[in-house]
Amino acid sequence: MVKKRAINIALLGIGTIGSGVARVLTSKKKTLARQAGSPLALTMVVDKDMARHGTLGLDPEIFVTSYKKAIDSDDIDIVIELIGGEYPAYDYIKEALSKGKHVVTANKEVMAKHGTELLSIAQQHHAGLRFEASVGGGIPLISPFQRDLVANDIQAIYAIVNGTTNYILSKMAHDKIDFGVALKQAQKLGYAEANPANDIGGLDAAYKLAILTSLGFDMDVNFDEIYFEGIAKLKSRDFRYAAEFGYAIKLLAIAKRSNSLVEARVHPVLIPAESLLAKVDGVYNAIYVSGDLVGNVLFYGQGAGPSATSSAVIADVINIAQNINTRRDNAPRFVPEKTSGIKPMADIETRYYFRMSVLDQAGVLAQISSIMGSQSISISSVMQQESDPSNRTAEIVIMTHKARESAVQKAMKMLNKLKVVKEISNFIRIEAI
Amino acid sequence: MVKKRAINIALLGIGTIGSGVARVLTSKKKTLARQAGSPLALTMVVDKDMARHGTLGLDPEIFVTSYKKAIDSDDIDIVIELIGGEYPAYDYIKEALSKGKHVVTANKEVMAKHGTELLSIAQQHHAGLRFEASVGGGIPLISPFQRDLVANDIQAIYAIVNGTTNYILSKMAHDKIDFGVALKQAQKLGYAEANPANDIGGLDAAYKLAILTSLGFDMDVNFDEIYFEGIAKLKSRDFRYAAEFGYAIKLLAIAKRSNSLVEARVHPVLIPAESLLAKVDGVYNAIYVSGDLVGNVLFYGQGAGPSATSSAVIADVINIAQNINTRRDNAPRFVPEKTSGIKPMADIETRYYFRMSVLDQAGVLAQISSIMGSQSISISSVMQQESDPSNRTAEIVIMTHKARESAVQKAMKMLNKLKVVKEISNFIRIEAI
Repeated sequence: MVKKRAINIALLGIGTIGSGVARVLTSKKKTLARQAGSPLALTMVVDKDMARHGTLGLDPEIFVTSYKKAIDSDDIDIVIELIGGEYPAYDYIKEALSKGKHVVTANKEVMAKHGTELLSIAQQHHAGLRFEASVGGGIPLISPFQRDLVANDIQAIYAIVNGTTNYILSKMAHDKIDFGVALKQAQKLGYAEANPANDIGGLDAAYKLAILTSLGFDMDVNFDEIYFEGIAKLKSRDFRYAAEFGYAIKLLAIAKRSNSLVEARVHPVLIPAESLLAKVDGVYNAIYVSGDLVGNVLFYGQGAGPSATSSAVIADVINIAQNINTRRDNAPRFVPEKTSGIKPMADIETRYYFRMSVLDQAGVLAQISSIMGSQSISISSVMQQESDPSNRTAEIVIMTHKARESAVQKAMKMLNKLKVVKEISNFIRIEAI
Repeated sequence: MVKKRAINIALLGIGTIGSGVARVLTSKKKTLARQAGSPLALTMVVDKDMARHGTLGLDPEIFVTSYKKAIDSDDIDIVIELIGGEYPAYDYIKEALSKGKHVVTANKEVMAKHGTELLSIAQQHHAGLRFEASVGGGIPLISPFQRDLVANDIQAIYAIVNGTTNYILSKMAHDKIDFGVALKQAQKLGYAEANPANDIGGLDAAYKLAILTSLGFDMDVNFDEIYFEGIAKLKSRDFRYAAEFGYAIKLLAIAKRSNSLVEARVHPVLIPAESLLAKVDGVYNAIYVSGDLVGNVLFYGQGAGPSATSSAVIADVINIAQNINTRRDNAPRFVPEKTSGIKPMADIETRYYFRMSVLDQAGVLAQISSIMGSQSISISSVMQQESDPSNRTAEIVIMTHKARESAVQKAMKMLNKLKVVKEISNFIRIEAI
């Protein structure tokens, strides 16, 4: 039943991740052939940088500069796209699928923005489109959603999917240092890029959340409707206050069933210190899924890096190769539909933490709680700390009961106009995971 | 491409888990049909107890008492085996597969003892044999090993796979109570059976370890070679001492590559208190896998119960149904081979914890360490506690560096002969996860 001819692979992009994948394809030939049912041959590498072949021990003749060569070649079975970014990766994937080539990609941006379209093109052309590496590096996630959890109605996903920010937040919490210092350490260790904007701003996590939401809720997600917010505004004192209240601070990607809609948002969150997600430290990722049958499951591991990413990319390649060898259709079984919409951020309801600098005088709290009350926001606890006699200010921390985001935003505007409020220094949402 | 005829299912065994599966099949018809590509019809229930149909709202006519009816029927596509235990479940599964029926089972004992044979029969007859529910309840595990981690050489598996014992150990650790009290609480809450022998004795975990070892190391495991030991000998004071040294105590199922062999053993283990597995409390399961590419991944969730188990059983059913509907072969891709052997327990090397009752007099430690030294066992730390002046004894706790199990066993025999050693109260292996 097993064809013995090699499965021919073209690799688009041979940067850090691409080099990792090439290295595994060449160094683990025997293991991979045994799993796939036939040899996996890296027969083409498409990159502008032709110089990599030396360090990787690859035949220089397989290097080409035009992606067209790979996509037009009748010999290529599987295209691995590891260029990253939206364009030209999107175009290449689309063209490859349209020509019936199977595609494996780690591209979160393309899958977040164009996943539904690409899956549908793949289905039409009986081509495989796999993207296990696009979320959580080597942690099995896409495949568990597509296969193991399909009997469930997913209720919620809470995910730490950005290792850079989780490293920074862990450092801020444990070493009591400020954001800038933690970021510099992360950069020094290679955990943050020179331009870390996409990571610390929450955009990277938002791409991954779009993919997880689409899988978990079987829906065609419009990426632009996903709310995201980064970690740069967090201060060391927020971690201290959070700890005093029994909370940790994490950047979470959250997708949650909310009646007929789905909440999908990325922002810093206070979560109970004893929850398992609070214990996920450093560059590790963890994805917590709540389903009506399975209850709560958690997947944990390294979310990035060439080695962990190779684990997922090559598993996808092997899976496609097995299907080719046993003449099974590689077409995606399922293309998400517009079954539900994303709940507008203004309409979500959760608990909130505020840190404010106020004048250190009587009656301040009365004024604040009166404004909160006018917006139906009920205060659950207040802590006043560190009054600064030199400028007669004090810092207060307020935690609310469940309130509506729009009401909270309105209350903040009103509070900002109060003379006794010098500054709303931070506001962080709270989740009871 | 999708056939619209229903996929017909026969359910063997309608106890607690079987009832749960039947309930999901009837209550989630629409969701399941959408995922499977056609309706899933529960058309036969085989059980001696015909009375269940009332509470489950099932047609009494689908109840039969002879499994032959299901296996001989041309109409049945998938047989779900939820009888449990080795016989007659093994015979029924074997016969069903031999007739080309697809089988889904949650039966850890059958898969641990006969997995390789049954997978090979399934392969011959192009029949599916899925067993996701046999380990870790609803936590995706079998499928990640079969699909997502295939590019890895697995180095080690450390698993909490028995919820009953993990509940008891959590209780003993947090409430500082003894084994018997914790067991009674577990029984009261339904977390332990009236006869808890298989759980507390480690046998249940050993079945699951056999399956995980087979998957992780692609090997045909001889179940009889797996060492297992239970938790009944643990005392409240062991948890106290462990905590003082910075450790927690868990019942772990361990499979580990050790040169050309594989270690496979179940026993109580001291693990560092800050490790993620140490934080898995109550009836939850967690499986920690270390692979050469993926690094360390952890899967966590409810390891038992009708609802979580249904999640896995029905995912398996849906997967088979999808393949039937798209005319893909359901045969297992991979049948484990005798690629490696299990390392004899006497040959393993790890660290050890001893608790002994000794005479409270000078020179005792010298005698003990002399015996240890004679067996090349090096002591890493000693704690002397609680001398009892009434009978002139003291309790000492010794932790060793890495030593060979056979040497440790020999040293214990020698120590037992020492006049100054009243009793070796406990010895527990230590793992640095």
